[in-house]
Amino acid sequence: MALPKVSIIMGSQSDLEVVKKSIQILKELGIEREVRILSAHRTPMQVKEYAVGAEERGIEVIIAAAGKAAHLPGVIASYTTLPIIGLPIQSSTLDGLDSLLSMVQMPKGIPVATVAINGSENAALLAAEILSIKYPNIQSALQKYRRTMQQEVLKQDQMIQKEEF
Amino acid sequence: MALPKVSIIMGSQSDLEVVKKSIQILKELGIEREVRILSAHRTPMQVKEYAVGAEERGIEVIIAAAGKAAHLPGVIASYTTLPIIGLPIQSSTLDGLDSLLSMVQMPKGIPVATVAINGSENAALLAAEILSIKYPNIQSALQKYRRTMQQEVLKQDQMIQKEEF
Amino acid sequence: MALPKVSIIMGSQSDLEVVKKSIQILKELGIEREVRILSAHRTPMQVKEYAVGAEERGIEVIIAAAGKAAHLPGVIASYTTLPIIGLPIQSSTLDGLDSLLSMVQMPKGIPVATVAINGSENAALLAAEILSIKYPNIQSALQKYRRTMQQEVLKQDQMIQKEEF
Amino acid sequence: MALPKVSIIMGSQSDLEVVKKSIQILKELGIEREVRILSAHRTPMQVKEYAVGAEERGIEVIIAAAGKAAHLPGVIASYTTLPIIGLPIQSSTLDGLDSLLSMVQMPKGIPVATVAINGSENAALLAAEILSIKYPNIQSALQKYRRTMQQEVLKQDQMIQKEEF
Amino acid sequence: MALPKVSIIMGSQSDLEVVKKSIQILKELGIEREVRILSAHRTPMQVKEYAVGAEERGIEVIIAAAGKAAHLPGVIASYTTLPIIGLPIQSSTLDGLDSLLSMVQMPKGIPVATVAINGSENAALLAAEILSIKYPNIQSALQKYRRTMQQEVLKQDQMIQKEEF
Amino acid sequence: MALPKVSIIMGSQSDLEVVKKSIQILKELGIEREVRILSAHRTPMQVKEYAVGAEERGIEVIIAAAGKAAHLPGVIASYTTLPIIGLPIQSSTLDGLDSLLSMVQMPKGIPVATVAINGSENAALLAAEILSIKYPNIQSALQKYRRTMQQEVLKQDQMIQKEEF
Amino acid sequence: MALPKVSIIMGSQSDLEVVKKSIQILKELGIEREVRILSAHRTPMQVKEYAVGAEERGIEVIIAAAGKAAHLPGVIASYTTLPIIGLPIQSSTLDGLDSLLSMVQMPKGIPVATVAINGSENAALLAAEILSIKYPNIQSALQKYRRTMQQEVLKQDQMIQKEEF
Amino acid sequence: MALPKVSIIMGSQSDLEVVKKSIQILKELGIEREVRILSAHRTPMQVKEYAVGAEERGIEVIIAAAGKAAHLPGVIASYTTLPIIGLPIQSSTLDGLDSLLSMVQMPKGIPVATVAINGSENAALLAAEILSIKYPNIQSALQKYRRTMQQEVLKQDQMIQKEEF
Repeated sequence: MALPKVSIIMGSQSDLEVVKKSIQILKELGIEREVRILSAHRTPMQVKEYAVGAEERGIEVIIAAAGKAAHLPGVIASYTTLPIIGLPIQSSTLDGLDSLLSMVQMPKGIPVATVAINGSENAALLAAEILSIKYPNIQSALQKYRRTMQQEVLKQDQMIQKEEF
Repeated sequence: MALPKVSIIMGSQSDLEVVKKSIQILKELGIEREVRILSAHRTPMQVKEYAVGAEERGIEVIIAAAGKAAHLPGVIASYTTLPIIGLPIQSSTLDGLDSLLSMVQMPKGIPVATVAINGSENAALLAAEILSIKYPNIQSALQKYRRTMQQEVLKQDQMIQKEEF
Repeated sequence: MALPKVSIIMGSQSDLEVVKKSIQILKELGIEREVRILSAHRTPMQVKEYAVGAEERGIEVIIAAAGKAAHLPGVIASYTTLPIIGLPIQSSTLDGLDSLLSMVQMPKGIPVATVAINGSENAALLAAEILSIKYPNIQSALQKYRRTMQQEVLKQDQMIQKEEF
Repeated sequence: MALPKVSIIMGSQSDLEVVKKSIQILKELGIEREVRILSAHRTPMQVKEYAVGAEERGIEVIIAAAGKAAHLPGVIASYTTLPIIGLPIQSSTLDGLDSLLSMVQMPKGIPVATVAINGSENAALLAAEILSIKYPNIQSALQKYRRTMQQEVLKQDQMIQKEEF
Repeated sequence: MALPKVSIIMGSQSDLEVVKKSIQILKELGIEREVRILSAHRTPMQVKEYAVGAEERGIEVIIAAAGKAAHLPGVIASYTTLPIIGLPIQSSTLDGLDSLLSMVQMPKGIPVATVAINGSENAALLAAEILSIKYPNIQSALQKYRRTMQQEVLKQDQMIQKEEF
Repeated sequence: MALPKVSIIMGSQSDLEVVKKSIQILKELGIEREVRILSAHRTPMQVKEYAVGAEERGIEVIIAAAGKAAHLPGVIASYTTLPIIGLPIQSSTLDGLDSLLSMVQMPKGIPVATVAINGSENAALLAAEILSIKYPNIQSALQKYRRTMQQEVLKQDQMIQKEEF
Repeated sequence: MALPKVSIIMGSQSDLEVVKKSIQILKELGIEREVRILSAHRTPMQVKEYAVGAEERGIEVIIAAAGKAAHLPGVIASYTTLPIIGLPIQSSTLDGLDSLLSMVQMPKGIPVATVAINGSENAALLAAEILSIKYPNIQSALQKYRRTMQQEVLKQDQMIQKEEF
Repeated sequence: MALPKVSIIMGSQSDLEVVKKSIQILKELGIEREVRILSAHRTPMQVKEYAVGAEERGIEVIIAAAGKAAHLPGVIASYTTLPIIGLPIQSSTLDGLDSLLSMVQMPKGIPVATVAINGSENAALLAAEILSIKYPNIQSALQKYRRTMQQEVLKQDQMIQKEEF
């Protein structure tokens, strides 16, 4: 089996429900992946090891999902120059605004490529877009995915034009 | 001269002051670039042409800066599968929160890799990180950039430890 | 059958539940209408065609509903000088604030007439008010609608004054 | 002299600096206008008279600018079925968010067409778009205005492409 | 029967559930009251008549409850110098922040005494405090109410100290 | 000299610049007043004494100004049933939103009548409105004040109608 | 039995469900504790007595939980130099942002050590960390607690690596 | 010279202006201290070493100041059970709300004791309060500090009572 290109890591098992949509998209696009649970705060040593070793294991893009004061993608980004995608998870208070700002407002020098709160599909699609500049087959898969999305919308549009309002 | 790999586009000439820091970082990292001004709303046809043709012109990553209801990166993203980095510009009201949400909250299917409000340096560094998975020299340049940043902090740390407080 | 005067377009089929209240009001006021589903991001070409051709098809006002980074009304507005009404849809995070700001904070040059988050009835009433400056029968219908609303409130007021508290 | 088609009303003389940009745009587009200062709270009787009589004086669209708990457009809208454009003014606290929400979140039945905080030019352009469905010359003026805006952006784009970065 | 001293007015029948707690507190404190439903936007004439005539009908304090762009207390305040208490109602979006800002941020000259979002009991208690500077029996009732509240807390405190944790 | 009816208290001397506008309005309306500086946090014992003794000293309404986590009005309200007006002061961060929420969101049982952030004039006018239900001369002064405000607006309106735009 | 070292106080019995998690953590760490219900607003005298007497009763850290305009920790802090931990409770509106700002934005001179909204476990862990600088056995208990947390995450990580995605 | 008890660390030299107030307070209270500059993102290895070694160097409390996505206190807290005080720094956008939420909303297990945005004095005072449970002389110094603050307020109160308003 091929080495994983994308590593999906989440800060807590409770993030898995949202993260599953990322995994599903990567699968559909035929992108090798691994899935990890590590907490920036409860397992800092392991996160460091994970981040430092990612490149050697063949990882080319990391998707890091976390909620509340969501430090996971930023901490990983501090240990590697791989592109890190931040997926802010909506938690029980503040509607995910805390997760979003804790990821997107990264200070000068260490970026995190942040997607929408709970934007799990888009995290995977962004990973694919990044890989696509290197792997033509991923670019093809992405373009096919886009055409399918487009067809779905156009079908809905045709349906609704036939409805009586 | 080599083809530009990164295209930096801004929605308004008033964004240039912030955007210049992106240009400077790309230059330091030795990344070929082009700089454009096009408005998603005032020049939609040209934005479409720009986005559709970007890949053919050799562009591999696009940085799109805009303020207020900042649609520029999302509109470009709708026309290409290249990775699009959104740089939200702080405008005269709402402190950039409007620009941030208009970029980062992209609906399912079309991601925008969003960085901090006015996070111009990080937009360029993220572009470099994306390119680095394909171009080893950019990875080297990035790693050197990181070491320099690190040295600067450590020098400040040594200085402050000598100060009398 | 008469040409539609108002076009109601939504970015996703999931917006239909909210949008139905707009359709219902237009119907009550006797205003010809069409209903479309097109996504600014997943079907940009079709949105462009839709917007560019709207005027020729007799459309005089467009109601565009969308959620999250809600670019649909702004994108349509960039292709036509018809008045565009933005209806921000509350989505699963941030309570609709993202949709609202993505519509109302349009930069200089291309306005979107924004109504309340999920303010579906008001989007239709605003469309009617705009048409009423040209069509006296719509003005009459609107004035009748207002009187009915007024009577309902006054009836409630009379009822509650009789209650024992 | 022709009757004014657009009435611009502001809640306080301190709003005039922002409002002047609306006036200027209407003038450029050749739209007859009047300018008033009336406060929903300090002169409620006069606002009522103003709103009730607007249609008879030939007014077809009203632009109402106000700050803080900005009730002016909503109060006017309660007295007339003319389309009312709300222009939220940024005041000394809360960055205009209070003005925006006090206008845009109008309850069911009485819409206010809200534009961006301090979006004075867009308030005028929206008024013109509304009038343009009735007056072909205003539509022509608007289309010319759009082309000029477009040319300005394209000129800036050409200039910046020549710059050395 | 004595004239009502407090008038409770709500902008929509849907506010009644929250408002009932105000009514109940006034009843407990023995304060004569009336309950009305009038909308600042759908029945502006009647709101004006209500506000202008309040003092003559013996009203000394008005509690005005409303949601979204909650103009009701401000509109009433513009027609009378009676103290107006604003009770912001939480509506289906934005968690009541819109109602709160639309009431509390009243511009210079016309105050609204605003209480917490859905703070129905406090609206009534504030009305009682205002009346208490004139009516000693209301002051006594308030002081008794406070002692009862205090006793309830102290009883809970005694109970919890006995629990095993 | 008459006893003060209104006590104005601020949590910090830095609030005085804003508070002065309250003092000025009370003076214009002929209302006896006292001015105090006491901090809920740095001088809790003195605030308690002040609050407990206010009624005996003839105080009928208290205006309490404070910034940040603005507890002053709530703490005073916990010791007296006099009506307490909360004046949230804008401080160096968060634009006064913290002060506003710390005052207006008082829990069930102890209300604070909150006015706009930095709404110093309105705090005084609300105090006057409260007193006016007991003192006819204050009601007269208030009504005169309103007429003056109204005349000022109408004069501005006449002036602007003469201007050439 | 040993004197309690930590006092947990809540402003309302409705906070108990959240607060129970604090109690549980302290119990697990073997820290003596007491639990109280007192309201800063409804029982100010008792809160003062509680705060003034805490040190004498052997209390070394206080956890104060409250919602809305959450003054409890600040009021206690004004009467003692013991470290006060503020636990903001999410209430029915504004998602706990009001509680958070009312605690964390304490003015200069009297700090409150604030944890996350509903962050009940962390309030207890912070209390333990503070005590651990004096009591080596609490430091040991804390370090054991951390290792357990770490092990749980690592077990989840091992599990998920075995899953098929 | 005695070992430092408090370590003050900031994420960037630009935070020094705010942080200096913390240093000054610690000095006034006679608390030994060290001052460091290390970035959680640019120097992660050094931050880890710093955090892991803090206890051995005699540090008992850490104050960590940072802006934007302020991860510094959380990252340090993940490596030690010493109490960590988070000092959110207001940066150029979002008024410090991002820094605040990135610190205070720490997920379950690893608390950060957060003080007000730019609340530099309170960070130091909280450190002193924590130390005071172990060091009686720090408790004395704190109590003296409080009395001085109290006297300053009372002097201001006496002055203002003599002024003519």
